Amino acid sequence: MSTTIDPADGTLAYDLDRAHVFHSWSAQAALKPFVIAGALGSTLWDYDGKEYLDFSSQLVNMNIGHQHPKVIQAIKDQADIITMVAPPHANLARGEAAQRILARAGSSFGSVFFTNGGADANENAIRMARLTTGRDKVLSTYRSYHGNTGAAVVATGDWRRVPNEYARGHVHFFGPFLYRSEFWAQTPEEECARALHHLERVIQAEGSSSIAAILLESVPGTAGVLVPPPGYLAGVRELCDKYGILLIFDEVMCGFGRTGEWFAFQGFDVVPDLITFAKGVNSGYVPIGGVVISETIAHEFDTQVFPGGLTYSGHPLAAASIVASMDAMADEGIIDNARMIGTDHLGPGLAELAAAHPLIGEVRGMGVFWALDLVSDPATRAPVSAAVIGELKGELMKRGLLPFAADNRIHVVPPCVITPDEVARALAIYDEAFTAVEAV
Amino acid sequence: MSTTIDPADGTLAYDLDRAHVFHSWSAQAALKPFVIAGALGSTLWDYDGKEYLDFSSQLVNMNIGHQHPKVIQAIKDQADIITMVAPPHANLARGEAAQRILARAGSSFGSVFFTNGGADANENAIRMARLTTGRDKVLSTYRSYHGNTGAAVVATGDWRRVPNEYARGHVHFFGPFLYRSEFWAQTPEEECARALHHLERVIQAEGSSSIAAILLESVPGTAGVLVPPPGYLAGVRELCDKYGILLIFDEVMCGFGRTGEWFAFQGFDVVPDLITFAKGVNSGYVPIGGVVISETIAHEFDTQVFPGGLTYSGHPLAAASIVASMDAMADEGIIDNARMIGTDHLGPGLAELAAAHPLIGEVRGMGVFWALDLVSDPATRAPVSAAVIGELKGELMKRGLLPFAADNRIHVVPPCVITPDEVARALAIYDEAFTAVEAV
Repeated sequence: MSTTIDPADGTLAYDLDRAHVFHSWSAQAALKPFVIAGALGSTLWDYDGKEYLDFSSQLVNMNIGHQHPKVIQAIKDQADIITMVAPPHANLARGEAAQRILARAGSSFGSVFFTNGGADANENAIRMARLTTGRDKVLSTYRSYHGNTGAAVVATGDWRRVPNEYARGHVHFFGPFLYRSEFWAQTPEEECARALHHLERVIQAEGSSSIAAILLESVPGTAGVLVPPPGYLAGVRELCDKYGILLIFDEVMCGFGRTGEWFAFQGFDVVPDLITFAKGVNSGYVPIGGVVISETIAHEFDTQVFPGGLTYSGHPLAAASIVASMDAMADEGIIDNARMIGTDHLGPGLAELAAAHPLIGEVRGMGVFWALDLVSDPATRAPVSAAVIGELKGELMKRGLLPFAADNRIHVVPPCVITPDEVARALAIYDEAFTAVEAV
Repeated sequence: MSTTIDPADGTLAYDLDRAHVFHSWSAQAALKPFVIAGALGSTLWDYDGKEYLDFSSQLVNMNIGHQHPKVIQAIKDQADIITMVAPPHANLARGEAAQRILARAGSSFGSVFFTNGGADANENAIRMARLTTGRDKVLSTYRSYHGNTGAAVVATGDWRRVPNEYARGHVHFFGPFLYRSEFWAQTPEEECARALHHLERVIQAEGSSSIAAILLESVPGTAGVLVPPPGYLAGVRELCDKYGILLIFDEVMCGFGRTGEWFAFQGFDVVPDLITFAKGVNSGYVPIGGVVISETIAHEFDTQVFPGGLTYSGHPLAAASIVASMDAMADEGIIDNARMIGTDHLGPGLAELAAAHPLIGEVRGMGVFWALDLVSDPATRAPVSAAVIGELKGELMKRGLLPFAADNRIHVVPPCVITPDEVARALAIYDEAFTAVEAV
């Protein structure tokens, strides 16, 4: 922890925020934001010097942990060379970042289009799919989030879409989720088969020749860490091939180590046509996102103008942070650590937690990507109220853990660099917090 | 110029770009990007050490000039503290950036919502206008560009909209542009009056109660630096008030010194309800944009949830660069310099250039924001061909000036820190380049 923090700065930061900053996805008046003074690795601290384990990874983006020295140094070094170069020109950092990403994506991919974040990555992937196929519709699941701009927010399935439906050409279907099955399924095999049947029926009923793309989070994240059952993603790929539909995997949250793989889809033996990314690619140290484009789709725009672009596409400062982050992840075995933590520590530890606390209806996840689905009654699986989640958040914060909450769930999503010791400390905190809430 | 550049890195940068980087708004196969090695102030250089005056400001964003030492230092300092904090929390750099922006915007504004760039700034401003008014339609001009995402690209008027029309609720009208009048006008007064009449007729014909907002670049930029005639913006404000429509000024390109004012609208004695910004706010050193929100509109979301947001909203590294950039602009008189350069140097110099070269049909602009409208025939005002623009670009680059070209125009858009000497050198280069092209 830094020794230079001044509590007066914390008061100033809070007051300036409340006076001047408009917050995402919120009513503004009642907000009481937590003020973060600094951070390192999986730990952050406030202006009183109190430390917290960051089991949110902020918005599930801080994969390499806070303030990784090699990434910070790379940002400073690039800042000394050049921060920004317009997209028509070329720049070394940008080319190297694209090279690093393609090296991990696999041999069918040819090119990277850089954006500012995940939303405009999805916007541009959708644009490429429509122009390549000459078709309009994009299918995505109700349990999904794809970003906050025009098309991305309408591709989104959750409540955030509803006040924002100003784009056409989006159709939603139900994905597999056995714990709250939409298909009256009893087993993963049944859930998978029925979800694929449902998707094929939607394709047929919409008219397969009207569908440009199916857009899926490889592992839906904010919707509840919905790890797809074995065979589902391969089955979607088969349907895409059968009907001439392109497959876009949104890896904004699940990519770059979150599931214990460079790309989450690599754990499911299936390859999409387009990949969208942001967050974990550089842990959000500098805003950037993008689309990894198959050779085939990239060639569609060899002579046809691609009608999309943005001022900060391939921003050198952001690109340099991608290079440093991906190199450090490889050199330091950070992806492997995430996988090991999931298998050896979080998986068994959270199962034990669930066994001890009837509030936890289901534990789902892999790597450093887990959700605790909280229920007021294990038999009916009725979600807990917002009040219970609020109490839990308070108990966790009190004990020095910054949680990630969504609907009736606590997502357990630490940085990929989290250690077994830190996981053990966190598990003890979760246990105490659940006990405290259950005692009310 | 840096002494450490290695030509081999230039070759590598070019090769990596051509192998892996997908470019904005282009067919990819024939691209031959210019490779930028480094930059300082209004000068940049390639890997052969050749220097260029940057009269593009990259994409008209490099307002404070390249690599301003105070902004670079602020980025490094913030990188040592914390790069990224999720939007629900608070952070000092974010609050200070909001404070700086509001201090320049004027007393009717209460809050800043930060985004990643200009496109999602416009997306969110449109969202706020729709939710505040309960109306759907957004009016914008045909000669405009508002960004590349779902709603922003459909609000855009130019060709970039046409392959991307997947959002509903957008209506376009013609703004004032005397040189190529849509209203058969002969004088600025006539153009203004007729453009306002046309706008009111569109409002009435669309149904005024269906219109949430009018979205205008205060000075339309990529469309050709279309400085509005006196009274036009005030007239639009009057129409908005008459019909209960909100007024959004897109200051992404024209704000933060480009016209010689902090905000371009401040030169026209009119105040909008929402301002969108990006580019010049921190010269794009770190990607960021946002919406400045009137007190009145901000209060609409005191208790109503605002259904928009993004992971990197209020990114501390970007926020710190805003604070340093705005402080340096104030301390060093950079806004005043831009105004002075326009009045005393670029204005008269470009008028002289136009008098000497019949290719230049009209010179328009203010501050460091100018366009040369090139014509093959001054009488008919027929635009020159793309070939002429291509030749001009080549002649300018050869002589060490990086130009900004759009359609049949050369935009003269240097950084706001440009000096009289640099303007004189640039004017000589433009003069030689026009002479060379006219000699063909």
